Amino acid sequence: MTIRGFQERIRDLYGAKDAARGELATFVWLAEEFGELATALRSGTDEELALEMADVLAWLATLATLRGVDLESAAARKYGLACPGGCGQVPCGCDPAEKP
Amino acid sequence: MTIRGFQERIRDLYGAKDAARGELATFVWLAEEFGELATALRSGTDEELALEMADVLAWLATLATLRGVDLESAAARKYGLACPGGCGQVPCGCDPAEKP
Repeated sequence: MTIRGFQERIRDLYGAKDAARGELATFVWLAEEFGELATALRSGTDEELALEMADVLAWLATLATLRGVDLESAAARKYGLACPGGCGQVPCGCDPAEKP
Repeated sequence: MTIRGFQERIRDLYGAKDAARGELATFVWLAEEFGELATALRSGTDEELALEMADVLAWLATLATLRGVDLESAAARKYGLACPGGCGQVPCGCDPAEKP
């Protein structure tokens, strides 16, 4: 499944509800999922963790659609060609204290 | 780009550094990116927003790799067949006050 295909799937399922809710309320739902991810990371089963990660991905895709962002293009632009930290290496050779 | 392909790309770039850092510190980086996403949503340019979304995706992929989660499989399991809220419809017909 491509990133774009997943974003479209979420749009097909929830696009109308998402547009009605708007981006700010959607961000709050995403934040709720982020908290559920923390819970699952701390004390959930492997499957619970996997499904919470899927939920974060889905709500991120929802927010992207509301704001006209193509997640796949953004991911490719940021990470597709070289480490965005500027080291130009695979694996990354940037200072671990910094993030790309 | 598939979700799996992106997760592998991030693993190739950062897998060693991620493993050395561990899942808890990685979650803190993900949280930092989530905050940057909020900033970009509120006051960033479209490109800044897109790249912050890419960063959240990347750090989610990093956390998934550290915990042995295949993000693409998880996304397909949760959202691939039917609305997880149980309505069975496309678009979703669940109560908008509830989330899947």
